[in-house]
Amino acid sequence: MQSAPITYLDHAAATPVANFVVAAMQPYLTDQFYNPSSPYAPAIRVRHDYETAKAEIAAVLGVKPDELVMTAGATESINLIITSVSGHVVTSSIEHQAVLAAAATHEHTFVQPDANGSINPESITQALRPDTVLVSIALANNELGTIQSLKDIAMALEAERERRRIAHEPMPLYFHTDASQCAGLLDLHVSRLGVDALTLNAGKVYGPKQVGLLWAANYVRLQPVVVGGGQERGIRSGTENVAGTIGFAKALTVADQHRKAEAARLHQLRDTLRARLEQAFPWAVISGNPKKQLPNFLHISFPGLDAERLLFALETMGVLVATGSACAANKGTRSHVLTAIGMPPEVADGSLRISLGKLTDQAAVDRAADCIISVVRAESQRVGNL
Amino acid sequence: MQSAPITYLDHAAATPVANFVVAAMQPYLTDQFYNPSSPYAPAIRVRHDYETAKAEIAAVLGVKPDELVMTAGATESINLIITSVSGHVVTSSIEHQAVLAAAATHEHTFVQPDANGSINPESITQALRPDTVLVSIALANNELGTIQSLKDIAMALEAERERRRIAHEPMPLYFHTDASQCAGLLDLHVSRLGVDALTLNAGKVYGPKQVGLLWAANYVRLQPVVVGGGQERGIRSGTENVAGTIGFAKALTVADQHRKAEAARLHQLRDTLRARLEQAFPWAVISGNPKKQLPNFLHISFPGLDAERLLFALETMGVLVATGSACAANKGTRSHVLTAIGMPPEVADGSLRISLGKLTDQAAVDRAADCIISVVRAESQRVGNL
Repeated sequence: MQSAPITYLDHAAATPVANFVVAAMQPYLTDQFYNPSSPYAPAIRVRHDYETAKAEIAAVLGVKPDELVMTAGATESINLIITSVSGHVVTSSIEHQAVLAAAATHEHTFVQPDANGSINPESITQALRPDTVLVSIALANNELGTIQSLKDIAMALEAERERRRIAHEPMPLYFHTDASQCAGLLDLHVSRLGVDALTLNAGKVYGPKQVGLLWAANYVRLQPVVVGGGQERGIRSGTENVAGTIGFAKALTVADQHRKAEAARLHQLRDTLRARLEQAFPWAVISGNPKKQLPNFLHISFPGLDAERLLFALETMGVLVATGSACAANKGTRSHVLTAIGMPPEVADGSLRISLGKLTDQAAVDRAADCIISVVRAESQRVGNL
Repeated sequence: MQSAPITYLDHAAATPVANFVVAAMQPYLTDQFYNPSSPYAPAIRVRHDYETAKAEIAAVLGVKPDELVMTAGATESINLIITSVSGHVVTSSIEHQAVLAAAATHEHTFVQPDANGSINPESITQALRPDTVLVSIALANNELGTIQSLKDIAMALEAERERRRIAHEPMPLYFHTDASQCAGLLDLHVSRLGVDALTLNAGKVYGPKQVGLLWAANYVRLQPVVVGGGQERGIRSGTENVAGTIGFAKALTVADQHRKAEAARLHQLRDTLRARLEQAFPWAVISGNPKKQLPNFLHISFPGLDAERLLFALETMGVLVATGSACAANKGTRSHVLTAIGMPPEVADGSLRISLGKLTDQAAVDRAADCIISVVRAESQRVGNL
């Protein structure tokens, strides 16, 4: 049935593990399989290689290796930071389900984005309470690709911290970001982002699934979600994922080295695709923030059409795109992100999320444009939209 | 420095991923990398293969696939079942740190084993309270290799359940076991074990690290430790570890198929090793339950000697053994298991845990025996023990 070659345009949902990453991991599955907590030299070498991998990751973030906690993906990382704090949590209504669900276990305020999916720092300031302990805003939204002005939000939080200092209020205020969609595309240096804690996911950057991390500055007191043998400084027990962490380090460092060139390449490909679709369908709605947008993201809506029908028609031609985030079990419900930015239902229901990546070249973009134009035209005629 | 060929006798700490397991995983890292929650056919095939792997695991346990929750290892699995319940928890003082630490977050009673590390069902009965909700006892102890009579404990619990039924007390009473050390050695069929919940770990059975599972019968109400996208029936959010689960299924099913022959092979090798060491050192102390012992475990103590010195001397000869569990960050402290069975400190401090496995053959056992005999003789002479 699936005879067409695959044109994969859903890198935001999952990325293939790069061959050099598989090659880096493999020795730690087979020959160097030792438990890094064992006391003999071959295990100590494994421990050393594990710590070296953490140091490589730390260098990309500009942090200390012992401030990293390796987790089984971004969701656990997000849960770890949010369940570690006691107090009011501020986040936005367009965050990943993991942030929304973990924040819902606290007193919380969900700030609303603007129509582009941007979070106004002023709206964060308004949501702050004297007992607010954590603000969590993703560096880039995982449906729209809108990049947030974390530095401006950080300044707003610094003003509140200064108020608390003067008022002798001891309540800390931490700033966390999920940067999972941004590795290999944006600068992840935490001091330039202005955050106190950061989540990353190897599975979005050509590393293995179920590998992620939480960085938290040493003044953020973490509380373990999982207790036991005391690994990861007691914050996250369980035998370490040596192969996964080494694969993550390789994937992240290589992606970061090529970040500027790859971002520029994807930016140009994305703009080509967008231009072709805009030309063919002037009535289509492009969402996100045109001035602050992930270079590999294109969110486009065809009002009056059914995105699922488009998706399946495209799939028969080998073109794989998304209607929204893959990270939700409740399929068939309307995206909470599109609802939050005030998109009318008839627009939201005709929305495609197209995300480019390493598998995307000019031929892929040309092919995708041809197929999308053909499918949208056919669907438009079918429903009498044209 | 490490020029001798390695004789690995610490399979209880970690096992190499079998080559056929790596081969089974690899396609799901690279070509079949799709997010199993994505809606297009290639992702649906990945979802199908993931579910098939869970069904293969379920068949080994004799359970329904949708009663399995895949986790990042045994520690998370143990935390998931213990944090899911509200009430008094009964476990033993020789359990894995993950059980002890998670139980410590509840009201709890730690029952004491006998000198062989066996848990008397009567001691469990005595520890039960009207508000006891969970009993957790490992199928085999991870330091001594003592196999517990779970069926007898299950009968004791059934008597308490019957009492509660008659008294119209609604408090449930669940029985959980960590069987991580037993895959590929013992029958894991849960109805024959008599448990309501079971933990397994791929990393102990020639599968990948950081892959585990919790089976819980459908009448056990689990509470998520990690919230988010709602994967694993809402119990454990996060993009599924497709490659890891497929590797786990392959490792477990193959190990279970060869279980009887492999257990017999290891039993004979272990007995050969034990006989040689007993002959050379009649004063050595063999621990565990000789009638109910994992076939690959040998726990031997050399009173008056320092196990760490033995371990490092053996390491220079390429023989890798353990002094205790690798799963604890606090090295250099005396094993809580040996303390609990009442072993005097001067015996405990001279203890080696030797665990055989796929990497062990007759030549390895002969070599290990030669080396251990030589090292123990030298150390004994050094300290004037002989």
